Amino acid sequence: MSVTLDEIIARFGGKLIGEGTIEVDGLAPIDSATMSQLSFLSNPLYFAQIPNSRAGAIIISHADFDKIVGHDNRSWIIASNPYAYFARVAQMFSEILQPIFLPKIHPSAVIDASAVIPTTVSIGPNTVIEANVRLGQRVRILGNVFIGQGSNIDDDVLLYPNCTLYHSTVIGARCIIHAGAVIGSDGFGFAPDFTVTGKEWIKIPQVGRALIGDDVEIGASTSIDRGTMADTVIEKGCKIDNQVQIGHNVRIGAYTVIAGCTGIAGSSTIGRYCMIGGAVGVAGHITIGDRVIVTGKSSVSKSISGPGIFTSMFPAMPNADWNKNAAIMRNLHKMRDRLRRLEATVKKLQDK
Amino acid sequence: MSVTLDEIIARFGGKLIGEGTIEVDGLAPIDSATMSQLSFLSNPLYFAQIPNSRAGAIIISHADFDKIVGHDNRSWIIASNPYAYFARVAQMFSEILQPIFLPKIHPSAVIDASAVIPTTVSIGPNTVIEANVRLGQRVRILGNVFIGQGSNIDDDVLLYPNCTLYHSTVIGARCIIHAGAVIGSDGFGFAPDFTVTGKEWIKIPQVGRALIGDDVEIGASTSIDRGTMADTVIEKGCKIDNQVQIGHNVRIGAYTVIAGCTGIAGSSTIGRYCMIGGAVGVAGHITIGDRVIVTGKSSVSKSISGPGIFTSMFPAMPNADWNKNAAIMRNLHKMRDRLRRLEATVKKLQDK
Amino acid sequence: MSVTLDEIIARFGGKLIGEGTIEVDGLAPIDSATMSQLSFLSNPLYFAQIPNSRAGAIIISHADFDKIVGHDNRSWIIASNPYAYFARVAQMFSEILQPIFLPKIHPSAVIDASAVIPTTVSIGPNTVIEANVRLGQRVRILGNVFIGQGSNIDDDVLLYPNCTLYHSTVIGARCIIHAGAVIGSDGFGFAPDFTVTGKEWIKIPQVGRALIGDDVEIGASTSIDRGTMADTVIEKGCKIDNQVQIGHNVRIGAYTVIAGCTGIAGSSTIGRYCMIGGAVGVAGHITIGDRVIVTGKSSVSKSISGPGIFTSMFPAMPNADWNKNAAIMRNLHKMRDRLRRLEATVKKLQDK
Repeated sequence: MSVTLDEIIARFGGKLIGEGTIEVDGLAPIDSATMSQLSFLSNPLYFAQIPNSRAGAIIISHADFDKIVGHDNRSWIIASNPYAYFARVAQMFSEILQPIFLPKIHPSAVIDASAVIPTTVSIGPNTVIEANVRLGQRVRILGNVFIGQGSNIDDDVLLYPNCTLYHSTVIGARCIIHAGAVIGSDGFGFAPDFTVTGKEWIKIPQVGRALIGDDVEIGASTSIDRGTMADTVIEKGCKIDNQVQIGHNVRIGAYTVIAGCTGIAGSSTIGRYCMIGGAVGVAGHITIGDRVIVTGKSSVSKSISGPGIFTSMFPAMPNADWNKNAAIMRNLHKMRDRLRRLEATVKKLQDK
Repeated sequence: MSVTLDEIIARFGGKLIGEGTIEVDGLAPIDSATMSQLSFLSNPLYFAQIPNSRAGAIIISHADFDKIVGHDNRSWIIASNPYAYFARVAQMFSEILQPIFLPKIHPSAVIDASAVIPTTVSIGPNTVIEANVRLGQRVRILGNVFIGQGSNIDDDVLLYPNCTLYHSTVIGARCIIHAGAVIGSDGFGFAPDFTVTGKEWIKIPQVGRALIGDDVEIGASTSIDRGTMADTVIEKGCKIDNQVQIGHNVRIGAYTVIAGCTGIAGSSTIGRYCMIGGAVGVAGHITIGDRVIVTGKSSVSKSISGPGIFTSMFPAMPNADWNKNAAIMRNLHKMRDRLRRLEATVKKLQDK
Repeated sequence: MSVTLDEIIARFGGKLIGEGTIEVDGLAPIDSATMSQLSFLSNPLYFAQIPNSRAGAIIISHADFDKIVGHDNRSWIIASNPYAYFARVAQMFSEILQPIFLPKIHPSAVIDASAVIPTTVSIGPNTVIEANVRLGQRVRILGNVFIGQGSNIDDDVLLYPNCTLYHSTVIGARCIIHAGAVIGSDGFGFAPDFTVTGKEWIKIPQVGRALIGDDVEIGASTSIDRGTMADTVIEKGCKIDNQVQIGHNVRIGAYTVIAGCTGIAGSSTIGRYCMIGGAVGVAGHITIGDRVIVTGKSSVSKSISGPGIFTSMFPAMPNADWNKNAAIMRNLHKMRDRLRRLEATVKKLQDK
């Protein structure tokens, strides 16, 4: 399957420079694209690769296009946001490559008679749909998925295999939930009572829900707990990577993205348009404002009000060097005390 | 469904102040409770919210009750441990809200003829129960669960969907295992032998078991490896959050709690009544004594004998400030050397 | 089942000292082995336990054997690599203990008619095998596994329950994939475009594949994303522990081992024979050379060319001590500035 640059421009806009009748059959990075492929420049690091690229055409910003000295005779698509433009064209190509979901219900699926199932949905083998579940139009469910009773799945949701939605979970339209993800599991709440032997930790029932807004993507093996009394809420447009853990009663603001292996402890609130790096830890009961960036591997233990970039990660060093510094670090207060004493001594010497 | 305060007192104890005939139909935090709800004060932070709370009644300690100036005419339940009291009342209410498990075996479950299955159990769709598995009374299994051969599940265990128990796993009474958890997977053990090409890492068979004591709760997507030769043991009453990884031959002492995303490497022993925070890393082959608290995101690389609180986490700072400090940290030994030289110089000046 | 030392020597080599007709029925550590068991010394820490060990025979290196003063009359197997020797003997014993996989296909498995399924495979209950999947000889699949369309599983692969392979995944010969693992999930790729409301993050289709080489083991709940345009590649002989996250377009070189809870961000390349500790974070778009060791809990944010050991982990300290140092750390640049001023002052005093 191939399309002409004219067809791409007609669908996604942008300005063509060169031949509109050129056909492309896919997308590829600048350094590996072939003559029949379309490429894109979004990262200035790759600017220097353009002259040697074999790409049939390149999506580029106006500013970058103007920087090129001596344009070769390939074709160009000038776009204000080349990366987003690339993403849209890639979506077009992938519609052909992706597995097809015809509306059908596999006979091995176990669906409670009370569930509301439109005729447009696709339900894979061994899926379990409990009582009073409501599926929207064109919901696509692969195999071995479990949807607990009373859950509500909005239109065009895509559920990958072996994911689990506990009872009363709400999933917004167009969400994508990857394999092994768990939504609506019990939060980690126990009241200590060491006066009663055998009941040292009393389980606090988790009767809130997990509410996932529209256009949220949730990665493989990510877990999102239900709320204790109120709900856990992931607002619309959030993108959450693999292996992320989100505790009970957390609220994540719209369009926030969270990279893999990050953990957000219970009852914390994260603002809108935040970018939380990978393997970050956010303590419980704190608030992070809008447009906060937390870089990978950092720890947030106190509330952060405003926008800004926050960090607490040390990069790895050769082990021997690290250990030398770490040993000093263990006694940093002694070093400060020595400095203080020295300052006092020098003061006296000066005063002499 | 609602109950009177008198009924609650009759069941859970405590002392009533006010109207015993008042009916409550649920629990809620102090700031959001309505007149028909019961609230509780366990965190002194919320003490100031009491006068404005609309809660019909509040569970409170004697000491906190005495601190209130000018008691309004709401009702009170005086309890020695208001949080545990709240948890018990919440459990009573949640028994009505929780999905019901009638004893029945879904016809799609695949159960080996040799398995021992009492008539009181509930087994959901697409569950696989292999040979020689033994289920206790009132075990409840949701859909798509896998129980490997020879496993022994004690009374009143609750297994959520898509969890996996490898062969020979032992689960104590009243355990709760959440969705996607994996118990009894192979430990990470390989003998290096780079003399034989193609067999560089020789797998060490993992023939021990994973033994889970009574009243343990295991979170979503948590994995607990089986032992290599001896067993991996989680003692009674432990509570383990989501996304926790516990390596082979680890022993966790009774009533220890472990928050999400923490990893415990192989052959380490953790004592009783410990509290391990989220995203903590515990190295292999070490021992942590009883009643040790490790705060979130810390790393434990050496044994810790006694009780106490242990930490190695830096909180995130504005990125520019952090980088300035981190650059100095990289050369902390140079700073110490400068201090030493300065001390020597000042000494000479003094001696002049 | 028991075997004589002569039989073991005949199969695995090594030199016997003592009685070859002694029978052993299993393996155990030096301190717990019984007279009918074979033990091994690979860690010098346990050398001192030898005189008191009840083990019927011990696998030991020539050098360690020579260190023993006054050999007792037990038997010994002298091996150049006692740990690897132990692993091989353990594999022999475990073949008897492991669950047996007879070639058979459970009737509840849902297998597309276009899939290629040799007669030697074993497929457990509720497994889903989509169109155009190709299984090799003697592939063993436990229950509730999902294999997406067009995937290719080579000979002797073992898939544990509830694992998920997305479409077009390639698994090399003799791989072992543990429960709950997810291979080939979408990478975390979104193009920001905040000019179009409701489409703030445009999903970049992930049309590459996940390619897993021969003899790779992948732990429970580990996730490996497919590539965006090119493929994610795990080369032969890698061993990956539980709860590891590997992003799109990552390449891991042959024989590298990665311990639990580690995350590797997208487009990074890790060399051959590396050892990556537990809970390590590797940033995206960097390169780590061959034979690099990264110790547990460290963060790698820049490329590392050569072999060596790299670290950035602080061990936990008593909380009060840590906080004192951490407070100084927050203002380390001020301490450096004080040192500078003091150096200048002392210089002036010297010059007087």
